[in-house]
Amino acid sequence: MAITRPTHRRATQAALGGADDAEPAAGEIGTRRAIVIERIDPELDGGRHAVKRVVGDELRVTADIFSHGHDLLDAVLLLRREEDEIWLESPMRLIDNDRWSGSVPLAHNARHRYTIESWRDLIGSWRAELEQKVAAGQAVEVELEEGRLLVEAALSRAGGEDASTLAKALERSRASPGASARRAALAGEAVLAAARRHPDRTSATRLDRELPLVVDRELARTGAWYELFPRSQGQDPANPIPTTLGEAEWRLPDIAAMGFDVVYLPPIHPIGRTHRKGRNNALAAEPDAPGSPWAIGSEEGGHEAVAPELGGLPAFNHFRAAAERHGMEVALDLAMQASPDHPWVQEHPEWFRHAPDGSIKYAENPPKKYQDIYPFDFDQPDRRTRAELWEAWLGVVLTWVGRGVKIFRVDNPHTKPVPFWEWLIGEVQRDHPDVVLLSEAFTRPKMMRALAKVGFSQSYTYFTWRDTAGELRDYLTELTQSEMREYFRGNLFTNTPDINPHHLDNGRGAFQVRAVLAATLAASWGIYSGFELLERDRLEDREEYDHSEKYEIRARDWEARPNIKRLVSALNRVRHESVALQRNDTLAFQDVTGAEVLFYRKALPAGEIDPLTGGASRFRDPVFVAANCDFKASVRAILHPNLPAIGIGWDEPYQMVDLLTGRWRRLRGADIPVELDPTRLPYRVFTIRPLQD
Amino acid sequence: MAITRPTHRRATQAALGGADDAEPAAGEIGTRRAIVIERIDPELDGGRHAVKRVVGDELRVTADIFSHGHDLLDAVLLLRREEDEIWLESPMRLIDNDRWSGSVPLAHNARHRYTIESWRDLIGSWRAELEQKVAAGQAVEVELEEGRLLVEAALSRAGGEDASTLAKALERSRASPGASARRAALAGEAVLAAARRHPDRTSATRLDRELPLVVDRELARTGAWYELFPRSQGQDPANPIPTTLGEAEWRLPDIAAMGFDVVYLPPIHPIGRTHRKGRNNALAAEPDAPGSPWAIGSEEGGHEAVAPELGGLPAFNHFRAAAERHGMEVALDLAMQASPDHPWVQEHPEWFRHAPDGSIKYAENPPKKYQDIYPFDFDQPDRRTRAELWEAWLGVVLTWVGRGVKIFRVDNPHTKPVPFWEWLIGEVQRDHPDVVLLSEAFTRPKMMRALAKVGFSQSYTYFTWRDTAGELRDYLTELTQSEMREYFRGNLFTNTPDINPHHLDNGRGAFQVRAVLAATLAASWGIYSGFELLERDRLEDREEYDHSEKYEIRARDWEARPNIKRLVSALNRVRHESVALQRNDTLAFQDVTGAEVLFYRKALPAGEIDPLTGGASRFRDPVFVAANCDFKASVRAILHPNLPAIGIGWDEPYQMVDLLTGRWRRLRGADIPVELDPTRLPYRVFTIRPLQD
Repeated sequence: MAITRPTHRRATQAALGGADDAEPAAGEIGTRRAIVIERIDPELDGGRHAVKRVVGDELRVTADIFSHGHDLLDAVLLLRREEDEIWLESPMRLIDNDRWSGSVPLAHNARHRYTIESWRDLIGSWRAELEQKVAAGQAVEVELEEGRLLVEAALSRAGGEDASTLAKALERSRASPGASARRAALAGEAVLAAARRHPDRTSATRLDRELPLVVDRELARTGAWYELFPRSQGQDPANPIPTTLGEAEWRLPDIAAMGFDVVYLPPIHPIGRTHRKGRNNALAAEPDAPGSPWAIGSEEGGHEAVAPELGGLPAFNHFRAAAERHGMEVALDLAMQASPDHPWVQEHPEWFRHAPDGSIKYAENPPKKYQDIYPFDFDQPDRRTRAELWEAWLGVVLTWVGRGVKIFRVDNPHTKPVPFWEWLIGEVQRDHPDVVLLSEAFTRPKMMRALAKVGFSQSYTYFTWRDTAGELRDYLTELTQSEMREYFRGNLFTNTPDINPHHLDNGRGAFQVRAVLAATLAASWGIYSGFELLERDRLEDREEYDHSEKYEIRARDWEARPNIKRLVSALNRVRHESVALQRNDTLAFQDVTGAEVLFYRKALPAGEIDPLTGGASRFRDPVFVAANCDFKASVRAILHPNLPAIGIGWDEPYQMVDLLTGRWRRLRGADIPVELDPTRLPYRVFTIRPLQD
Repeated sequence: MAITRPTHRRATQAALGGADDAEPAAGEIGTRRAIVIERIDPELDGGRHAVKRVVGDELRVTADIFSHGHDLLDAVLLLRREEDEIWLESPMRLIDNDRWSGSVPLAHNARHRYTIESWRDLIGSWRAELEQKVAAGQAVEVELEEGRLLVEAALSRAGGEDASTLAKALERSRASPGASARRAALAGEAVLAAARRHPDRTSATRLDRELPLVVDRELARTGAWYELFPRSQGQDPANPIPTTLGEAEWRLPDIAAMGFDVVYLPPIHPIGRTHRKGRNNALAAEPDAPGSPWAIGSEEGGHEAVAPELGGLPAFNHFRAAAERHGMEVALDLAMQASPDHPWVQEHPEWFRHAPDGSIKYAENPPKKYQDIYPFDFDQPDRRTRAELWEAWLGVVLTWVGRGVKIFRVDNPHTKPVPFWEWLIGEVQRDHPDVVLLSEAFTRPKMMRALAKVGFSQSYTYFTWRDTAGELRDYLTELTQSEMREYFRGNLFTNTPDINPHHLDNGRGAFQVRAVLAATLAASWGIYSGFELLERDRLEDREEYDHSEKYEIRARDWEARPNIKRLVSALNRVRHESVALQRNDTLAFQDVTGAEVLFYRKALPAGEIDPLTGGASRFRDPVFVAANCDFKASVRAILHPNLPAIGIGWDEPYQMVDLLTGRWRRLRGADIPVELDPTRLPYRVFTIRPLQD
């Protein structure tokens, strides 16, 4: 990959889809843009949605490029930042069967556009035809004169060393009496290469669209998240008293020691009093009930305020700075709804939906009612009001961005219009491309994908409800091997304040395996605090936690045993050490015998990459993970890692190194028996290395 | 499928992609167009190319349609002729998982557009929520008032019977004291249906593009073609003398009796004298050499003239009328190239490519040279000249269309610009949608597809070179089951004047099997005359015929034996009788044992069609074909027709009827042994029917 000459973009040219303003577009009479450029990969919905990458990635683009007749073609991949006028060009090359490939490294956290331009390689075509005729013993006097004219034309466009090469070729050709000597002068490799670098592109064909590309910072794809309620971080487990953000800071060293990258806080805004919910979501609140953090807004302020009981904005600023000193970022919750006491209810009643009796409608999901929450009416008829409402939300987000918050976990985005997100995220990221948004849309698959397509950086997934080895293999294959991998980045949470999954009833082995899977199957994973302490008290038979922190103040013994803090720390350490674990496209399931055993590899491509697929057949730095998804029974599994794919012969000895403990064994052959016992060690995370003698 | 109200299209609305001019487009601030419509099927390249159908077909469209929140949606499929302002609406229905389906019958041979519009079903959503609340025992006074307002609003948009239904519902609701009675008045099925027919669509979401659809006449997809050189139709095989078109007419009854639909003539224009080729493509022509019909143009005229030796234009007109009297159409060859004597060479030297010495360049495919042919230079730099050249060709085509020719076999379209064809075919079919163009592009697969996408009605295929059963199965599966079936219609020729395939060396059995395959695998097939007489004399080891008609006058004994005229007649009779054989999407390969045996079924869907795929699980009027593709060895094959798919139990008796001979047998079970002997009967064409008692 080499970046060649940058070219200037002209607005008219972009509109016309070609390099020559005077030229008609394809399909109009007399066009010279006769090169077909199609089946671009990647391309989402005909260019209507952006492909996602992160800084440091490479964008590899393949396309069918061909034209009528016998001429050879040349092509370039063009890339520019959305706000730039300059295109960077990278050469593309013909692979086979009219399929071309090119790639370009991505250095900037910004929205980009890419496209393709192709033109006839006149000098190359001339040379190919010349050689065929020479081989057939035909006279080539006329052809040599044509070649001379082509070299002369290239010289008129060239400069520097190429100009001197071309000029010398013309001189030698003039001085040569015979056809053979003139051919040697004009048709040599160096002359050809110099001329091809200065082609006539006045009738080049430019792809008729500029495809969008979002280049995020790395945390948009890769990170370990830890969710905690700052008000429930007291130091005395026996005496649950509310804590401020300042008082919660004592927990940061422990969280950092577990290796997390993001500390995510549920809403920290003032909480409404009207219809405040009590313990376990009771309709009537106890007098001291703290209320649900999602019932946002009181006389103390709305979405831009920090609750006084948390210490207000100064405490938040201090907390954020403390987290950053521990190498972590703070993520805020963005829940676009209001308690009846939210200031906007008085200031902007027109932003809410009203019943025929004039009352504001609270949130419902019949038969469930949420009397403490008013949804905003994004569908109301008045256009100006809608626009004001959208602008107000943009203002809220930009306020927090201005305060240094760059990560948002967005509550229930699927209940707001998809075009609203497209607009909001576009507005925010135009000036703040480092903002990361996590979509909390636990809803139908197509809506989840649509939200990712219009801009969410990453998304919660169905992982929490995928229990069996088969379900997990199918789902992760869909996420990482289908078109979804171009735009949908799963963040695998083991649990959330709303989801206490039933499989955790099985105790420590289940917690261990679910942590191992979440941390290694995807580049982003997360836990809601308490998971590391094996918390699993359930409200009746539902997925809700008993005594949920959503409705009451809790306190925990953070050193309680048994716990899996050491495992979590080790997993995050391995994640930080392994680049393969920091990506999603590195996943490959491996053969294994054993019911309910999942066995997979994450590894980086090594050696030659297939220019068509971007895939590889050889890999390096592999991480292998085996896990027993049956939490009730031990299983003796035989792992069959693909050894040749990592450079080890089927019969060669190798070192199998446990990445969590550092212990290693010398082995030979692709049948590795392991006992995966939920009561002892139901997982393995290891690498395989050639033996060093 | 029911056509509901037509709606008017407004130009601005089409440009904005929505129903409400005052509304901003998706992605802009404040839009109410919040319904996602995506994954449209069929859709080619994001709507850049047209899907093809024929008159009498149904257009079935499926799409993902969904929105935020809990509201139900409604949607319609919209269809209009390109020149019309009126959209016809057909209702779409939700199938599952946010996937919708709708269909519309196609009655007009014209270019069309189709799109989708969707809106919130407010009354349906209201009713669903009401019923949930009633089921949960909640009070619904406020909800009933909301319902009353929705019915009132619907009434304001309704007329006729619906208005009276809605008015009565409001009256009864007013008169009802209790909630239960008011609910009965407002939320009944009839009221709901009436209100849904008059929705508020001011904020409906219209798909942001109008997808192109070409509806051809049936011959664009379905026909049997017969190619002949009119100059070589003498009646005395011992004395080959040139014949005029008038003299060639005696052959028409025989061709019609064989059941052909199209008589295709190689170029009938005056032939150049300069560099005229002789027998077997010799560089030096014999004095009486007639020349290649593709070396078009002499002082007697160019592409709009008919060669005097063929009787000139009057003879052609008479021939065409005679063919039509026999139920056949004449197809002409469109070869955009000139002999050095073509009038345009003098009149428009600027339309040709010149060597540096000023001479016009003849056609070459190094090391081959075609000194008798000048290609036109579609790539020349001057834009006005290019446009004049394009217009000149449009003029030629329209001249012949004006003379009643509606079918063109286009020679080597892949050597002319793809955008030229898009423009030319668009211009011709705008006023003459009944014009059919067959692409003779024997070239790389992607160029063949590109030409079909930009407008060619049908295309030559690789069939002639697909020999083995496996190759044929793979290739026909690609043509009929992949996205290609939406735009690429193969015309399977057994042979052409340029292609004398090697498998025909095997004699009669090979001719029989290739005819059976071509006639039944695709809706269009063709032979070049002589095939029915088992002609296979070969020039050396090449695919060229010895003593090719391209370069000399031939004469044949049209009653020579052995021949396969009876088989060809029977095949075309079965094709005319079977609707399934007249379509391409009806093909299904069946299980068979026996090396090199191909066994397939063509049948019409019966009963319920899967609304998602448009496919069926039950079929009627099946035609089964079995053929031995090994022309050297007899094989005993066991055919395994899928009996339940055609309504016959695995163990039920049935009638197996040979469609070519009418002979039948009574059978039971899905193992049918047949002997496929190249020297006797290497094929079977039959149907299976339930036994009639």
